Amino acid sequence: PGKKVLIVYAHQEPKSFNGSLLKIAVEELTKQGCSVTVSDLYAMQFEPRATRNDIVGPLHNSEAFNYGVETWEAYKRGGLSKDLVEEQKKVQEADLLIFQFPLFWFNMPAILKGWMDRVLVQGFAYDLSKAYDGGLLQDKLSLFSFTTGGGQEMYSKESISGDIRYILWPMQHGIMHFCGVKVLEPHICYAPEHASEEKRKEMLTAWTQRLKTLWKEEPIDCSPEWYFK
Amino acid sequence: PGKKVLIVYAHQEPKSFNGSLLKIAVEELTKQGCSVTVSDLYAMQFEPRATRNDIVGPLHNSEAFNYGVETWEAYKRGGLSKDLVEEQKKVQEADLLIFQFPLFWFNMPAILKGWMDRVLVQGFAYDLSKAYDGGLLQDKLSLFSFTTGGGQEMYSKESISGDIRYILWPMQHGIMHFCGVKVLEPHICYAPEHASEEKRKEMLTAWTQRLKTLWKEEPIDCSPEWYFK
Repeated sequence: PGKKVLIVYAHQEPKSFNGSLLKIAVEELTKQGCSVTVSDLYAMQFEPRATRNDIVGPLHNSEAFNYGVETWEAYKRGGLSKDLVEEQKKVQEADLLIFQFPLFWFNMPAILKGWMDRVLVQGFAYDLSKAYDGGLLQDKLSLFSFTTGGGQEMYSKESISGDIRYILWPMQHGIMHFCGVKVLEPHICYAPEHASEEKRKEMLTAWTQRLKTLWKEEPIDCSPEWYFK
Repeated sequence: PGKKVLIVYAHQEPKSFNGSLLKIAVEELTKQGCSVTVSDLYAMQFEPRATRNDIVGPLHNSEAFNYGVETWEAYKRGGLSKDLVEEQKKVQEADLLIFQFPLFWFNMPAILKGWMDRVLVQGFAYDLSKAYDGGLLQDKLSLFSFTTGGGQEMYSKESISGDIRYILWPMQHGIMHFCGVKVLEPHICYAPEHASEEKRKEMLTAWTQRLKTLWKEEPIDCSPEWYFK
């Protein structure tokens, strides 16, 4: 109760299974007394492209545009574009970040990758020698909640698509852990599009149940061993 | 000679190191007699968001928007948006796809991920039971050429950032191999921003040299073992 949650949501259709998972999370966490904020990326028409428009005012070096350097400098002088400042404020205030999306090509959809690329800039999320356990977004939790197209058997170590944890490495470790954010077990709904109505309901109920005890969970040991052991 | 190459390029600045790598590839491959096409994503203001706008005309199911289903249906009836049709034509004609980009967050920049999400739709790049070695884009080669922020020692198995091959899994295997495209060894320039002018020149020369014998290369064995052995 009193915890702040930011849900970054990347699906075009409220009636989708992802939409139902979002709705459940908002309802259940609100019921617990949490304050829930949703960044509905498609509805916001969130810009995924990392461009010069992200910097207000003159560039640090207008001779050759370097996005990393320019956003770092802009962050320090308070010169990032309004949409980024707003997202950073939501992140700063949150105790828990939930990412809700359908897996696209072994990864998050481009609109969500764009959120990562543009919001988590140097100076805000990490800095020189401030990464991983020293990252700037410490004392926060994250949770990747997503749906897949293929069934669970497709994402096993022996399958040609490999262990689902291989896919989680760049997202959980390369982004969240890099910023110092602790990572809870992912929540994966396998192939809801091909599941029976009953199975779909079970999956939704499982998400509600998990959320009820979420705050008692311990983060995973987000190290290479967890992913590739 | 006579081979067709599509370079999908994702950097904002022509004067960047990525810009130099692009220029070298265009020059060297053209010199060899290849026909080279460049999709300069930032210059094209390429749309990374997967939305209803990608479908021309009425939807297959307008009650609940499902991007995967809608683009599949639209592909079959020739109803994808013009920008996607153009990119698909370039892919179809190419013998080799080169992706040139700076690594962002253990992954490709969102604008390039958006190209993958939107261009490689079902029916065009893969289909029901037509994936991996049965994918629809067979007899093509791909090559991921990218720059990193961190040095090479950062991307070793023993380092906290893990083996660079872990990062290549979703891109090379999960996308290209999934579509039936063969994968050449990646070309990685580590930390050019922190390198001396001499070292940068060496890296550019190495790229030119590699391109000279590129067509004699054998694809990697793109299986879990290559990545996680």
